[in-house]
Amino acid sequence: MADWGLHYDETYQSDRINAAYGDTKASFPTLGYQFPLVPRRHDCHGHYTTAPAAHEGWRAAQLAAAAAGRPAPPYPEITDDEIRESIAAGQLAIQKQRGIDLTLFSPKASAMGHHLGDHATSAAWTRHCNDLIRRVCGLFPRNFVGVAQLPQAVDAAPADCIAELERGVKELGFVGCNLNPDPSGGHWRGLPITDRSWYPLFEAMVALDVPAMIHVSGACNCNFHTTGSHYINGDTTVFMQLVEGNLFADFPTLKLIIPHGGGAAPYHWGRYRGLAQQLGRPTLDRHLMSNLFFDTCVYHQPGIDLLTRVIPADNILFATEMLGAVKGADPQTGFNFDDTGRYVAAAPTLDDASRKKIFETNALKVYGRLAAQIARQTT
Amino acid sequence: MADWGLHYDETYQSDRINAAYGDTKASFPTLGYQFPLVPRRHDCHGHYTTAPAAHEGWRAAQLAAAAAGRPAPPYPEITDDEIRESIAAGQLAIQKQRGIDLTLFSPKASAMGHHLGDHATSAAWTRHCNDLIRRVCGLFPRNFVGVAQLPQAVDAAPADCIAELERGVKELGFVGCNLNPDPSGGHWRGLPITDRSWYPLFEAMVALDVPAMIHVSGACNCNFHTTGSHYINGDTTVFMQLVEGNLFADFPTLKLIIPHGGGAAPYHWGRYRGLAQQLGRPTLDRHLMSNLFFDTCVYHQPGIDLLTRVIPADNILFATEMLGAVKGADPQTGFNFDDTGRYVAAAPTLDDASRKKIFETNALKVYGRLAAQIARQTT
Repeated sequence: MADWGLHYDETYQSDRINAAYGDTKASFPTLGYQFPLVPRRHDCHGHYTTAPAAHEGWRAAQLAAAAAGRPAPPYPEITDDEIRESIAAGQLAIQKQRGIDLTLFSPKASAMGHHLGDHATSAAWTRHCNDLIRRVCGLFPRNFVGVAQLPQAVDAAPADCIAELERGVKELGFVGCNLNPDPSGGHWRGLPITDRSWYPLFEAMVALDVPAMIHVSGACNCNFHTTGSHYINGDTTVFMQLVEGNLFADFPTLKLIIPHGGGAAPYHWGRYRGLAQQLGRPTLDRHLMSNLFFDTCVYHQPGIDLLTRVIPADNILFATEMLGAVKGADPQTGFNFDDTGRYVAAAPTLDDASRKKIFETNALKVYGRLAAQIARQTT
Repeated sequence: MADWGLHYDETYQSDRINAAYGDTKASFPTLGYQFPLVPRRHDCHGHYTTAPAAHEGWRAAQLAAAAAGRPAPPYPEITDDEIRESIAAGQLAIQKQRGIDLTLFSPKASAMGHHLGDHATSAAWTRHCNDLIRRVCGLFPRNFVGVAQLPQAVDAAPADCIAELERGVKELGFVGCNLNPDPSGGHWRGLPITDRSWYPLFEAMVALDVPAMIHVSGACNCNFHTTGSHYINGDTTVFMQLVEGNLFADFPTLKLIIPHGGGAAPYHWGRYRGLAQQLGRPTLDRHLMSNLFFDTCVYHQPGIDLLTRVIPADNILFATEMLGAVKGADPQTGFNFDDTGRYVAAAPTLDDASRKKIFETNALKVYGRLAAQIARQTT
């Protein structure tokens, strides 16, 4: 794979880390995996929200054609320069600005649109989305590692997604996938993810050694704002499904990430500990916490302080969701709401070892293929 | 109204408060309203979860009859002794144990069941539920003040609830109501509460000077656990509807309470501040916080610490939801999960003045009829 990426500024990154943590050498010893630069902030949650307009334009045309009973138009040609431009001034610039070494990068979540069209249209769209992610990773191999969209649809079974997951992992070098627990887009017409209909997909994930991030797509129910309530509700809903169910007893090596700080779960941790007890489930640590992880997409200091106080550092993955759900600067701090690294760096209950886990090493643990993929993309 | 209630143990209550706060005289000066004892902990969120079995038995028979096209059976006779027994060992004993002076008491939320039957069955059921609450308040007039269930239904308009709300307030002495933002029980088939179809009900609430607690009922969607995700999602969903909408510009004196600590909102306060900014809305304090209140039904110390750090004390109401969503003792503390007074008492960012607002005086501000109703029930 050719490296067409911008040049990586090691000094700049190190300075950022030093400024945040003091002695880099002490806090960040070189990891055992082969990588020419020591990655220090792995952002496990980034979406390609800035894809060239022709990409989403094709999606609109595809759906219109399907609705009219016509074949989809040909997918447009998108040049490498267009992709570079779509990334360089946005995600890549912000990575550098914030000392983020690497982003686990997936298609725009709100545009997955599993409630639109049918399995055939979803499969075609998903293929193009994943191919585009692969191209981003090819152009910026030191900065992005791919995570797959799945061709879910209201008329598709979870098993129908396995082929594209395998293609993503084996052919495109992806290290995880996004799993939508509500392909009906806010109507919740399917079954909980603990239902056995989901098991073939989990079996495939385990066999491939890839985790899933639980992530709904855009809401088509007027009661829900996509990023303001549907996303958070999706997280909370699945967390409680896992409390009620026994998924990880059946899949002891399966790993799931609940993004957006786990929805409401950490804030209501006492409620969930109490409900687990009331329902005769094991304690949450034994029931869930060998398999379940929360990201740090919580956009203020008190939220991250709660997350890091309640949830063990072993179960937290650094993430920003940029460029994503919330754009713009917080007038209270002067920094962007989604500059979550600042909150993690300042969280009072964390020590250096915990921060290292959250920023860097947990990602390598949860995404079992990540270390090898980093090596593959950069050597 | 005759006072059939148990004798109120002033000394006991004062001892509890003293133990928690030190000098009661300094921290809790006598309020200006007429009440023979100074209430110190007003619990704004209690449900009659322990009603005599005949009550819910009638509901089941009513729904079965409606499904079969038969008239409902007569409502069973429930004696005062049965009601006393259903309360004395549960809610009343816990009130005393925890130093709670008064509970704003409403029918069991998960049993409202607005998705079951139609408007006629909901109206009949709601009437019986509210009448039972009135009887509890009559039997224990110093301990409970009533809050109305509304006869919502999937085939009813919000305006169809006004008559029962007026009956509850004017005839039964209720000071608020519970408003279900999703009468479809987890399918979210209705419209956001900012839709104009809700306005007649809000107009009635404003005219009567009663607030609404936003509270969904039981979930009939298998994706949701009633108290584990549907309740919390309902809270989060409505909060975001209010961020998007302009309800309080149209109803500047309307007051709404979002229970369960505001769902996910305080934990994700940065997200919501950012979304308000991105959507061109006023800042949350100007947009919502003269009208919107969160309760303290968050069942662990870190959650209450976040709530009281992020949300102004003026916008927080003490509540337990007992006997409610989570039963049992927290093995980490030895105290019941829902003993939220302990968390409020220990929250490090609160001073005595803030705690007084949360425990006592905010309820009198938000429930405009409460002080007069307390006087009416106890003199």
